[in-house]
Amino acid sequence: MVFGNKGNGCATGVGFTRNPGTGENEMFGEYLTNAQGEDVVAGIRTPKPLQKMQEEMPEQYAQLVALRNTLESHYREVQDYEFTIEKGTLYCLQTRNGKMNAAAMVRTSVDMFEEKLISREQAILRIDPELLEQLLHPRLDPDSTTSPIATGLPASPGAASGKCIFDADLAEKLGNAGEKVILVREETRPEDIHGFFAAEGILTSRGGKTSHAAVVARGMGKPCVAGAEGIVVDVCLRQAHIGEKVLHEGDVITLDGATGMVFEGALPTLAAHFSDELKVLLGWADEIADLKVMANSDTPAAAEKALEYGAMGIGLCRTERMFNASDRLPIVIEMILADTEDDRKAALDRLMPIQRADFIELFSVMSPRPVTVRLLDPPMHEFLPTEHQLLEQIETLRLYRDVVRGRQVALATSATMTELPHPFSELSEEFVNEALTTKERMLKKVRELQEVNPMLGHRGVRLGITYPEIYEMQIRAILEATVECAKQGISVQPEIMVPQVITAQELSNVKRTVDSLTRQLEKDFGKKLRFKFGTMIETVRACTRAAQLAENVEFFSFGTNDLTQAVFSFSREDAENKFLPMYNDSGILQDNPFEVLDIQGVGQLIEMAVTNGREQRKDLKIGICGEQGGHPDSIRFCHQVGLNYVSCSGPRVPIARLAAANAKLRE
Amino acid sequence: MVFGNKGNGCATGVGFTRNPGTGENEMFGEYLTNAQGEDVVAGIRTPKPLQKMQEEMPEQYAQLVALRNTLESHYREVQDYEFTIEKGTLYCLQTRNGKMNAAAMVRTSVDMFEEKLISREQAILRIDPELLEQLLHPRLDPDSTTSPIATGLPASPGAASGKCIFDADLAEKLGNAGEKVILVREETRPEDIHGFFAAEGILTSRGGKTSHAAVVARGMGKPCVAGAEGIVVDVCLRQAHIGEKVLHEGDVITLDGATGMVFEGALPTLAAHFSDELKVLLGWADEIADLKVMANSDTPAAAEKALEYGAMGIGLCRTERMFNASDRLPIVIEMILADTEDDRKAALDRLMPIQRADFIELFSVMSPRPVTVRLLDPPMHEFLPTEHQLLEQIETLRLYRDVVRGRQVALATSATMTELPHPFSELSEEFVNEALTTKERMLKKVRELQEVNPMLGHRGVRLGITYPEIYEMQIRAILEATVECAKQGISVQPEIMVPQVITAQELSNVKRTVDSLTRQLEKDFGKKLRFKFGTMIETVRACTRAAQLAENVEFFSFGTNDLTQAVFSFSREDAENKFLPMYNDSGILQDNPFEVLDIQGVGQLIEMAVTNGREQRKDLKIGICGEQGGHPDSIRFCHQVGLNYVSCSGPRVPIARLAAANAKLRE
Repeated sequence: MVFGNKGNGCATGVGFTRNPGTGENEMFGEYLTNAQGEDVVAGIRTPKPLQKMQEEMPEQYAQLVALRNTLESHYREVQDYEFTIEKGTLYCLQTRNGKMNAAAMVRTSVDMFEEKLISREQAILRIDPELLEQLLHPRLDPDSTTSPIATGLPASPGAASGKCIFDADLAEKLGNAGEKVILVREETRPEDIHGFFAAEGILTSRGGKTSHAAVVARGMGKPCVAGAEGIVVDVCLRQAHIGEKVLHEGDVITLDGATGMVFEGALPTLAAHFSDELKVLLGWADEIADLKVMANSDTPAAAEKALEYGAMGIGLCRTERMFNASDRLPIVIEMILADTEDDRKAALDRLMPIQRADFIELFSVMSPRPVTVRLLDPPMHEFLPTEHQLLEQIETLRLYRDVVRGRQVALATSATMTELPHPFSELSEEFVNEALTTKERMLKKVRELQEVNPMLGHRGVRLGITYPEIYEMQIRAILEATVECAKQGISVQPEIMVPQVITAQELSNVKRTVDSLTRQLEKDFGKKLRFKFGTMIETVRACTRAAQLAENVEFFSFGTNDLTQAVFSFSREDAENKFLPMYNDSGILQDNPFEVLDIQGVGQLIEMAVTNGREQRKDLKIGICGEQGGHPDSIRFCHQVGLNYVSCSGPRVPIARLAAANAKLRE
Repeated sequence: MVFGNKGNGCATGVGFTRNPGTGENEMFGEYLTNAQGEDVVAGIRTPKPLQKMQEEMPEQYAQLVALRNTLESHYREVQDYEFTIEKGTLYCLQTRNGKMNAAAMVRTSVDMFEEKLISREQAILRIDPELLEQLLHPRLDPDSTTSPIATGLPASPGAASGKCIFDADLAEKLGNAGEKVILVREETRPEDIHGFFAAEGILTSRGGKTSHAAVVARGMGKPCVAGAEGIVVDVCLRQAHIGEKVLHEGDVITLDGATGMVFEGALPTLAAHFSDELKVLLGWADEIADLKVMANSDTPAAAEKALEYGAMGIGLCRTERMFNASDRLPIVIEMILADTEDDRKAALDRLMPIQRADFIELFSVMSPRPVTVRLLDPPMHEFLPTEHQLLEQIETLRLYRDVVRGRQVALATSATMTELPHPFSELSEEFVNEALTTKERMLKKVRELQEVNPMLGHRGVRLGITYPEIYEMQIRAILEATVECAKQGISVQPEIMVPQVITAQELSNVKRTVDSLTRQLEKDFGKKLRFKFGTMIETVRACTRAAQLAENVEFFSFGTNDLTQAVFSFSREDAENKFLPMYNDSGILQDNPFEVLDIQGVGQLIEMAVTNGREQRKDLKIGICGEQGGHPDSIRFCHQVGLNYVSCSGPRVPIARLAAANAKLRE
């Protein structure tokens, strides 16, 4: 806030037509009486709040109120203005549109509409959808902020506190032991990646918003402050210098990824805030937009969250997330280890009622909105421990067996012994032998399932075709849940979606199972089952064969994560961790294509698929469920090519809703 | 050969207008005098060669010669005919086009043209290009064939002998110990893959030409006989039954992948045979075809071989194959392990003259034909040992260090000790320590470079941009070799090719280096350097951005192996080993897209890139250098979309030359 030495009248000051912190419609600003420029520069005098002027200079205050009202009704936007009062006369020195935080932008939008200053359309267009991000992550409590000890670039939003740790190994060790840590590095490199997983947030003293640290942190959804150049990290001495201040390893700091500020100690944070005004604004957006906004949610709890964010349905439910819950994983592993189809079916028979119950609950929560369930996608080895883990476990178990057998081995020398889960005395030789047998079977299976490039391996519909009993179980669970909901009078719109499709033959193969189960269930139930059958479009070949695929399905959903990987031949994990930051920094690529849809490459294929698909089937419902579905520029593209919906992670839903309206209004 | 009981005249027989084994223009056939059908069926009487008739029945023999000539000049094709002679009169019972082996087809084509029976075009069109495969692999010596003990499907061409081994583990063990083994299984599965690597050939008793065994063997270029149903494999007893015969594990057998026959013992094989007639025929093909045929060759020796096959240049020289030679690998590893750019440059400075010498030799061998050199493509970890190998080596070295330090450790219990390379007494503690340090550095680097999906990772031009000094070294070596050849008066056409490109910015980045080195060398040399700069089109994005890429380059080369992986989202190694055989068997996919170009998917992208690329640059030279470049159907497609050349492995060059002419003639 700058007070110019503008005239030597009785007062000079600055005002905001509304409160830029909250958006409240009130007189807001400060002034100094008899001020000289030097007074302000020297910081000798404290300015007074504008309200004070009402007592001190009531006449001029009334003029100021009138000025404020005139400014806003003229510009139809919150104004940041400067004034001076000379010899009792108010002069407006300058005015400009005011910069506000997200909460204030939202509130002023709604208020100004209600005051008939702006239209609903203007209320929406004046807010950059990306700004809402501020409202959707934990943030620092504004009432308890102190001065930052350093400031860098706001590289990944959110706020986090923890002990500052100067290398990834120690960060991992402490993080795994349950401590909250902030990884602090001059800059990060691919070999630091394990430290990212363990840390609450990342702070670097070098690098920009597309640096390794920034890109990887955003990918993981962790707060990051990058390029805080005031910090000098000395890994050898395990300390960092900020001017005169010394930060020792283990000292607690707090990062604010939304502003780039770094604070000492653990500051209180606030959960994401969803105000009434935001609800009103997004309600308008929904009425204006053509695109529907769905959420990617895998569990009933996540679905409830998504509803709070205003999701109009679930565009992607990844059934494998259901498999990973601790009560199911052992059955899934049993299914994978099965040597015969019968054993596999026995395990699947036990999984089926669990999945069915999941779906009943999910459909009920979302009733009457659509829920798109994707059949199993990841390769089976993802459900098993790694080879490395198993080798360690087996080694431990063997030592353990020797012990329970009473053999004399040099126990004291074995580091692994300390990790044994139980006191020796409690376990029998049989128990250990059985555990060993299981682990050895798992190891054999893990080796059998090993893949060179799992992203391009035995997954998706390829699994569904080589092991048809898996998809059959899932389809049955979905359809039986549909029947059950119908019986309970719950209106549901289930959609069955097949992943990784490359050819129409795969779809007809799966559809045969769907049709036969449907016939069977409809016969028992006595009524028609209402659901949709559709396909992910996430391989390039699916785009080139869209017309043929459309013959068999009622909807397409673009999986733009996988599609981007295929179009660029970039594995996301490897690219973001290795060369993508450098590509962005040097301008070879403008954006990270995993965050912002690549219109020149991926977009071309999407257009091809939309055109060919709709030529075959006019009423084909088409959406996108990749991560880019929550990004405003990508949403604009989706609107332009005529998609019906976007689906994104729950917290991005409000941004997507606003962006969808924005895209329509900017048509 | 069937002798019907056709009339009871004085003779009955069958003839081939030419020798179906060699193609020689001679009377060929057999006859029986006074034959009854039963005589033949019972096998009691041995038929006589047709020549014998000249003595026995000279008049009828003359009629037969006339008949033979009439048949051929009428049908203009070698005829397989049956005749009978009744009461001195020759009757032709039936005739049809004769089936011949590849050598005979080629010879008769050339002979019939020279005899003016057929045109050159007809001479070419009557031969299925794929048939030449028979002539381009080692094959059994036809003079020493015996009766097969079993027959299956000819699933992958070539001939091989070895001990029959019934499981992959033993096959691997013996194979690695230098024994020649044939892996014999009821059917193979992904977990047998290590046995494939170790075996000379694969024999299965179940499964078709698209079974796992067949697909994987073809991928590796190893002979395979699949589905030899007469063989019953008993892994427990380590033996196989063929009718009454018992084959014990370790017995030597011979496979003929071209015919599907299995023989006892080791039969002599002949190297691939390139006859004069084949040379003549392919010469005609070259004159007719629009497409040029290049070879994928990486070394001067391979280039010489390719010239023998008639390659018109090298369409793909993979420089990394040069890096793998034992005199270079240590320098390459040094380069990879370098901690600083200076250290990396020092290693590259040592590699440069070696690469330059390679190129001078390669260019000279191929002079004056074009040689397309692809800059480094694979990820750097491919040049290092695996993590597993290094862990074993480090463990061994640690034990060894303990020993040379004179510590008392339980040596006898350590299995790894037996693998130590030298007697203990010869090595110093310093030596071992140094080795340990190097291996530990390598392990650290290997872990740092680890990738989740290496196919989609830090490779190709991404390496060239993140480590510009690597591409600079290679470009310098190519250009200096060009200067050196020019100085020696050797006419060369070098082409520099950039792999894995996704955007025009990558190309301009590399081109800056090319331009600056060119200017510098031209200044010293005093003459213009003539070479081409081009790009692989092997990512999907390169296809969508072809117009922009064409601005910077003079040629495109489609890398259809990688492009197919990207279009299908199939990793070749994982797909062929896991689900592709099942996809082919069940008709979900007609072909293996890594062998036969997928026109509906990959082909669409190729067409898009050709159209857009040539719109930008009319004279753009375009070719294909994936494995499909040697497949006739794919070549036909390449011709149809207007490519300038195909490049394939040396032994496929003759097939490609014939197929290119074929495509032109069938336009």
